[in-house]
Amino acid sequence: MLRVGVIGCGGMGRSHIDRITNRTQGAQVVAVSDVFEEGAKKGAEIAGEGCKVYTDSKQLINDPDVDAIVIVSPGFAHCEDLLEAIKVGKRVFCEKPLCTTADDCKKVMDAEAASGKHLIQLGFMRRYHKGYIQIKDAIKTGEYGDPLIMHCTHRNPEVPESYNTPMAVHDTVIHEIDLCHWMVDDDYESVQVIMPKQTRYIHKNCKDPQIMIMRTKSGITIDVECFVNCLFGYDINCEVVCEKAALKMGTPIAPFIKKDATLSTEVSTDCFVLFKEAYDEEIQNWIDCAAKGVIEGPNTWDGYLAAVTADALVKAQESGQIEPVNTVEKPDFYK
Amino acid sequence: MLRVGVIGCGGMGRSHIDRITNRTQGAQVVAVSDVFEEGAKKGAEIAGEGCKVYTDSKQLINDPDVDAIVIVSPGFAHCEDLLEAIKVGKRVFCEKPLCTTADDCKKVMDAEAASGKHLIQLGFMRRYHKGYIQIKDAIKTGEYGDPLIMHCTHRNPEVPESYNTPMAVHDTVIHEIDLCHWMVDDDYESVQVIMPKQTRYIHKNCKDPQIMIMRTKSGITIDVECFVNCLFGYDINCEVVCEKAALKMGTPIAPFIKKDATLSTEVSTDCFVLFKEAYDEEIQNWIDCAAKGVIEGPNTWDGYLAAVTADALVKAQESGQIEPVNTVEKPDFYK
Amino acid sequence: MLRVGVIGCGGMGRSHIDRITNRTQGAQVVAVSDVFEEGAKKGAEIAGEGCKVYTDSKQLINDPDVDAIVIVSPGFAHCEDLLEAIKVGKRVFCEKPLCTTADDCKKVMDAEAASGKHLIQLGFMRRYHKGYIQIKDAIKTGEYGDPLIMHCTHRNPEVPESYNTPMAVHDTVIHEIDLCHWMVDDDYESVQVIMPKQTRYIHKNCKDPQIMIMRTKSGITIDVECFVNCLFGYDINCEVVCEKAALKMGTPIAPFIKKDATLSTEVSTDCFVLFKEAYDEEIQNWIDCAAKGVIEGPNTWDGYLAAVTADALVKAQESGQIEPVNTVEKPDFYK
Amino acid sequence: MLRVGVIGCGGMGRSHIDRITNRTQGAQVVAVSDVFEEGAKKGAEIAGEGCKVYTDSKQLINDPDVDAIVIVSPGFAHCEDLLEAIKVGKRVFCEKPLCTTADDCKKVMDAEAASGKHLIQLGFMRRYHKGYIQIKDAIKTGEYGDPLIMHCTHRNPEVPESYNTPMAVHDTVIHEIDLCHWMVDDDYESVQVIMPKQTRYIHKNCKDPQIMIMRTKSGITIDVECFVNCLFGYDINCEVVCEKAALKMGTPIAPFIKKDATLSTEVSTDCFVLFKEAYDEEIQNWIDCAAKGVIEGPNTWDGYLAAVTADALVKAQESGQIEPVNTVEKPDFYK
Repeated sequence: MLRVGVIGCGGMGRSHIDRITNRTQGAQVVAVSDVFEEGAKKGAEIAGEGCKVYTDSKQLINDPDVDAIVIVSPGFAHCEDLLEAIKVGKRVFCEKPLCTTADDCKKVMDAEAASGKHLIQLGFMRRYHKGYIQIKDAIKTGEYGDPLIMHCTHRNPEVPESYNTPMAVHDTVIHEIDLCHWMVDDDYESVQVIMPKQTRYIHKNCKDPQIMIMRTKSGITIDVECFVNCLFGYDINCEVVCEKAALKMGTPIAPFIKKDATLSTEVSTDCFVLFKEAYDEEIQNWIDCAAKGVIEGPNTWDGYLAAVTADALVKAQESGQIEPVNTVEKPDFYK
Repeated sequence: MLRVGVIGCGGMGRSHIDRITNRTQGAQVVAVSDVFEEGAKKGAEIAGEGCKVYTDSKQLINDPDVDAIVIVSPGFAHCEDLLEAIKVGKRVFCEKPLCTTADDCKKVMDAEAASGKHLIQLGFMRRYHKGYIQIKDAIKTGEYGDPLIMHCTHRNPEVPESYNTPMAVHDTVIHEIDLCHWMVDDDYESVQVIMPKQTRYIHKNCKDPQIMIMRTKSGITIDVECFVNCLFGYDINCEVVCEKAALKMGTPIAPFIKKDATLSTEVSTDCFVLFKEAYDEEIQNWIDCAAKGVIEGPNTWDGYLAAVTADALVKAQESGQIEPVNTVEKPDFYK
Repeated sequence: MLRVGVIGCGGMGRSHIDRITNRTQGAQVVAVSDVFEEGAKKGAEIAGEGCKVYTDSKQLINDPDVDAIVIVSPGFAHCEDLLEAIKVGKRVFCEKPLCTTADDCKKVMDAEAASGKHLIQLGFMRRYHKGYIQIKDAIKTGEYGDPLIMHCTHRNPEVPESYNTPMAVHDTVIHEIDLCHWMVDDDYESVQVIMPKQTRYIHKNCKDPQIMIMRTKSGITIDVECFVNCLFGYDINCEVVCEKAALKMGTPIAPFIKKDATLSTEVSTDCFVLFKEAYDEEIQNWIDCAAKGVIEGPNTWDGYLAAVTADALVKAQESGQIEPVNTVEKPDFYK
Repeated sequence: MLRVGVIGCGGMGRSHIDRITNRTQGAQVVAVSDVFEEGAKKGAEIAGEGCKVYTDSKQLINDPDVDAIVIVSPGFAHCEDLLEAIKVGKRVFCEKPLCTTADDCKKVMDAEAASGKHLIQLGFMRRYHKGYIQIKDAIKTGEYGDPLIMHCTHRNPEVPESYNTPMAVHDTVIHEIDLCHWMVDDDYESVQVIMPKQTRYIHKNCKDPQIMIMRTKSGITIDVECFVNCLFGYDINCEVVCEKAALKMGTPIAPFIKKDATLSTEVSTDCFVLFKEAYDEEIQNWIDCAAKGVIEGPNTWDGYLAAVTADALVKAQESGQIEPVNTVEKPDFYK
């Protein structure tokens, strides 16, 4: 039984505590931490009897009863805790982003590489969604030739006033940033953002829709329509165009209804419905791997690459130009 | 140029006059007839200058300027005109039914066979619908094995008060009666009608929905859900289950719209939209054949078989039993 | 933690032991039993340390360390164990069939009713398949009017030589028997079986395909195409025709591939793939309910009704007639 | 009856002669012209008795028996004939391109505007394809908000060795150039071409695939995946993303086949199949309009705009930059 400590007891933190406690196998939450003691106590309640409560994440990390750590604190707090966890050699599941700056990401990556052990998995849960896995598996068969182009949409019914233009990168397309390079097993070289005609239904602080274009080192070109106030649904699509075939991700099971001169089926409006199983699979996989002392999911390099690519996209949002993705060379440790 | 005379200038008659005049090639309407002179004149107007007007269909049939005849008069009037046309050896396109009784159908069939020439084509336009043709062609390849079962639906948004239970056979499933035996190239042996729970939205004179089951001589079993007050659309489906595959008829081109949390596409509510092209193709094919002195479409045997099968279905509506389809043996002339 | 005893350690028994041990929450297998000690030991191994091994199911049922019982023994052995479990008042999950004869089913039903407690859940796992639940939920909204007709297919790629005609009822359509009456909340009144033209790819002992028709007390008519040697896939479909709408079950997520002039998507060939999640949900729900001292899943009445309906279908396979489903009146205890 | 003269009797010319003669209403081909007399004679044969044969297109244009003209000669020959036709005030259907240079297009446009009569229709037949019309009609309802983005694919199974990179613009995406600005009723402002990873199945002279991006004056952004050696089919798609909905073009009727563990439907490999009806509709509409002395289809401005946009795209293929579409201001005459 893997003994897990959870840092950060906000909504997502409590969700992960509940997941580990009630929906996955092989782990239990033995300690939680939050800078707000009240929050930490609420988290501990979900975990059940005997769960320790910390307000200092360092103490949790160093608790000898804690085998592995889940970090769900705000992004700016990740770097320090990740470095501490690396120091004590414990496996970590860290919600995205890895860190809030590319420099910090690199610092963590260097520390992990220096430690000689793969310790950190990033919370890019979409890699565990059946639809993407089916496509990746299909590509891997080689039957369809090399992938050349990916067309994606990331549509969302609406966003609050607080959502601004760069968040389209950091909070929304960040998923495609990770997913797409993973699906075709390649890293990014350059990006571009096109601002089409804007919907009148978005508030002033946010450009919407946006078309983000990412090019991998081998030239695979990924276009992502990011439309966060599309009103009609949470509509995620992915089509990979290969040399001999086009592969389109399937849609989840839902009834087809003929009524009122219309054949219709539901489009989800809730990302937690679409990716519900993926969240569980992600944590289950991390638990299984951590128990075996390995990491199979998105790793520190992926987190670093996502950070650098996101920075380039934000720059491209303003410049309107093709912007390079300037990463260090991929360390052998991550190859 | 085939010179056509049209008998019957009601709605359907005028529609065929317009079709021959304006939408098909190789024929022109040179004479029309209707027991109501006013009606005949309206028909002639559509045909344009020089079109003769009759109130006596026999005169039209015998007019030496008329090469071929379209009969769109009420069903009870068909028999006499068909016999007359056979006598003078002119090609006929006759709207369904061939005649209103199986006996009359047989009389016409015998007369045609005796004449030694295939003269009559019945107005089962669905044989000219692309969707059915594609399925029939697929079956004919042999690639899918023999057809064993057909599942059909014939759904209609609503019917008037005047529509009664036997009309579900004579006006509605009559299309599947002809179509299904043609698609699998077999004749009927027995039928059954099941009355499921009834919709509360139908008026008193009509049972709705009904499930009609038709069995061919080789045992192919066809079930037709006939639901004429289904409210939601004119929804025609056909799936043929073969030994190695199931073949489902495609649907016409229509946009897919994502809006309000729903992905939807239109279900037609109008049979004339769905079969618009089929009506044109049917008449064009008859014109082409008549000009060559042949008949390729549904013939007199098909009309006779439909009449006998319909009678058996009406009997089965009342008896609840499996009823035989008692036809004479198929004359060699129609094999 | 619910302490579970499992009776029967064949393939399905071991699968349930693994499920309870590794894929569901809140229960552990503390005892197993099999008439073959070797089999029981294999089962115990999956459950892990401390699991007791019995060869006499009665001892397992009476073991005070066992809170609840899973019966996965051959059908003929169910009756006695069920009666024993009722005697000691323990909750049971029993794989179908409840018993092999309607009389035995009734004996168990009477005993349970006399005990005053709902103790037994039957293994009709399809009720836990998302697709069916979505349709049942849609019906329950009332938005579509009353259900009138259900069209189902139960297609299977192929069956072994040992599979015979009655097994099309007992092993195959038994699922639809339970599922369909549950979806529309009604019991059966009569049944019919139609034997269409037979596929040449089936062996001699089995009629295939068959069309089974079941009529509920309110007249809802269910047709099931049972085609167990269809070659092309495990193809389960369900369409419910209501007064205002037709509801068709969705299909599982799978990629759409355009290649070689074809747009295609996979049809499963394995029932355990299609219903994998359903098996887990079924057992999880039973564990949760057993822990609370209730039964929510298919109950003893459902098992009895299925047995009587299956008997009528087997009779109908031979008679070709509409056969009544002669159940006792539904006891108040099960309403 | 509109008396039509056809200039150019190559494959496409003969196809139009056949169309006017045998598949459309209200016109007949009374004269044909080709620089090769043999070709002209072949064309005349299709038109039937009495059709005049010219080798000088000017004579045909000036023939008083010719009411209207169809130009299907090579592109370089269009300009002179168009100017001549304008001079004599006859209606013209001109296959694309209008002229081979933007300057020539402008010359023709100026001449037509000066003549004060709309005389010329361009052969962009896709505007007559039902699928596009349905989408355009849907947009026009206003129900879905303003269009913001269009995603298109223009995939083709394979191209000959003679097909080179600029032809992806001039022969392939030229259709989307016309179609997309028409669908959203806007003109182009700038374009860009992205060269993704290249398929190894294309020959050396052609870059494939390409992503072409066109921006309208109001900012609507159109991306077209042009993949002319995709191997799998002639696969045309169009999705218009509006403020409240995404509208995807429907696909033509085709059977759905379940066989060998796969559900599949055909992807056409032949553009003449997909757009067969559109070619007929296009010519029929031109005949109807010419007879009434109007032009409803793609006009001279559309031809000029297409030429300028195509030039910008070819430039963008080489520069990799966003290139402006420098048209003159739209003359009032074309508004």
